[in-house]
Amino acid sequence: MAVDLGTTSHAELIQQARQGNRAALARLISKIERRSLDTEELISALFSHTGTAKVWGFTGPPGAGKSTAVDQVIHILRARGHSVAVVAIDPSSPFTGGAILGDRIRMQQHASDSGVYIRSLATRGRHGGLSHATKEVVMALDATGFDFILVETAGVGQTELDILKLAHTVCVLLVPESGDSIQVMKAGLMEIADVFAVNKADRPEADKLVRELMLMIGLAENKSRRGYTPPVLKMEAVRSQGVEALVDACLSHGKHILESGLLAEKQTEFLAEEVFDVLSEQLRISFAASMTSASGQELLKELLAKRLSPYQVANALSGRLA
Amino acid sequence: MAVDLGTTSHAELIQQARQGNRAALARLISKIERRSLDTEELISALFSHTGTAKVWGFTGPPGAGKSTAVDQVIHILRARGHSVAVVAIDPSSPFTGGAILGDRIRMQQHASDSGVYIRSLATRGRHGGLSHATKEVVMALDATGFDFILVETAGVGQTELDILKLAHTVCVLLVPESGDSIQVMKAGLMEIADVFAVNKADRPEADKLVRELMLMIGLAENKSRRGYTPPVLKMEAVRSQGVEALVDACLSHGKHILESGLLAEKQTEFLAEEVFDVLSEQLRISFAASMTSASGQELLKELLAKRLSPYQVANALSGRLA
Repeated sequence: MAVDLGTTSHAELIQQARQGNRAALARLISKIERRSLDTEELISALFSHTGTAKVWGFTGPPGAGKSTAVDQVIHILRARGHSVAVVAIDPSSPFTGGAILGDRIRMQQHASDSGVYIRSLATRGRHGGLSHATKEVVMALDATGFDFILVETAGVGQTELDILKLAHTVCVLLVPESGDSIQVMKAGLMEIADVFAVNKADRPEADKLVRELMLMIGLAENKSRRGYTPPVLKMEAVRSQGVEALVDACLSHGKHILESGLLAEKQTEFLAEEVFDVLSEQLRISFAASMTSASGQELLKELLAKRLSPYQVANALSGRLA
Repeated sequence: MAVDLGTTSHAELIQQARQGNRAALARLISKIERRSLDTEELISALFSHTGTAKVWGFTGPPGAGKSTAVDQVIHILRARGHSVAVVAIDPSSPFTGGAILGDRIRMQQHASDSGVYIRSLATRGRHGGLSHATKEVVMALDATGFDFILVETAGVGQTELDILKLAHTVCVLLVPESGDSIQVMKAGLMEIADVFAVNKADRPEADKLVRELMLMIGLAENKSRRGYTPPVLKMEAVRSQGVEALVDACLSHGKHILESGLLAEKQTEFLAEEVFDVLSEQLRISFAASMTSASGQELLKELLAKRLSPYQVANALSGRLA
């Protein structure tokens, strides 16, 4: 394995980050984002330190007030003496824009608090989901010793489904205006949400949305939850109302999954998926190398001439890619 | 290879679909969507018939009037004597809903026209992008002999970037209201759009948006386009105004890529990507099998105990997965 010659070694960097050195942590995360050859060594070195952080996901449609709510959650967790890291997923989609500016403002607000670390990540996954790097950044924050990692997704595309692959507890934020669009997304929401929070609850339609959600939850018996029923909370994040209850509901869900064995199952699933992500990344690299080789170029020629199908070329390659 | 015993063989089904039998085509597509064991044989049989259809992608933010515009494009292409297939991508995202109802209405409208075939597909890709199956459905429609295949994406998440991986010509639809959000998506749009169409051009802000787009295009010199400049058109699709010009602009782009050699490059890239998709799918299947084996379970145990990292487990598996 290559070692970062001339600079601090991975082991030292991890050690420094774990001792609270934010510059070291920032360097670790940048290394993970860049996907260099030594990512493998870095993650392997980090990995043994992981497993203690609680990972909460926050998702919901654009405009639901996720950033404000997450900000309030930070304050509450800090007041209770916990350290908090935030990963804000910045969508690469050209039609949605990003939260970058907002995050800079937030980072300034917490800049003097050494117990808070906020980082924006672009979704660089091939299909716009949470990228492999995102999961590894969460690992790095976990290994660094943060008590809580809050992952805030943009609520567009598929990131809100992918949040299930890294968060222990998922909080879905809605606003009264979301009501009309809920009909089409019932099934998906029921699968995702461990806690529902109706933000901007001072608006007239809020109670109606709460009732609809409760009805949906009542109808959707979900055995995989082992007796847990997602609560529906009312909130006004801008006025700091209802956010303590949200934090308590997330903690309560955490207790449930720990005691019911669901947490252990989730952790197993997440780690197996991480192994698959590593294999996928390796496949992409070896595929690119293989296609530029002489024999790869020959196969491509046969493919273009339609003498071989994509499956036949894949089968011919898979021996070579091993 | 397994053959569909007791029913029509793949070769017969393809033959029937190519002769205009819509029930046979629908069965082909359903087979592709289901991803059965004989998908490989089916695609290999279809593949030699592909390569003649023009594939146009239509994307843009929700509310840009994509369905209406695509409907008008169908009418124009039909009036010019071409057969048209439409693939409408239905987002699986719980926050966005689908176009299913709208598509059913559209299908009824064209039901009596044997030269039109419309199919909605759910995005089942792991990360919400256009799935592997989507590309193979486009292949099936191509092999069936349609002159044009119009792929309409939901304009959420990453599908609008993935459209670049299967469409020869991409048309980005915008509405005057999109103006404000354009600032953040400039780079992405410039990369995607071969033709810009500002729909609902009767609204006051339309001219401003057109000017902004023209300015963006002027600033973004793009050598990979080989002298082509994306036109910016004004449209009122509901009143059938400007859609002929849109069709002509797409045809003109098609002529440019054919003559400049860009089409051949795109086709090579698409086919190589298709090979990679096959390999990824095979990896997913062999990974699942491997993890349930005794030795896979043993590795998982080491992973959970943090004695092996995800990379170490991946490396241990990759020998076995070959």
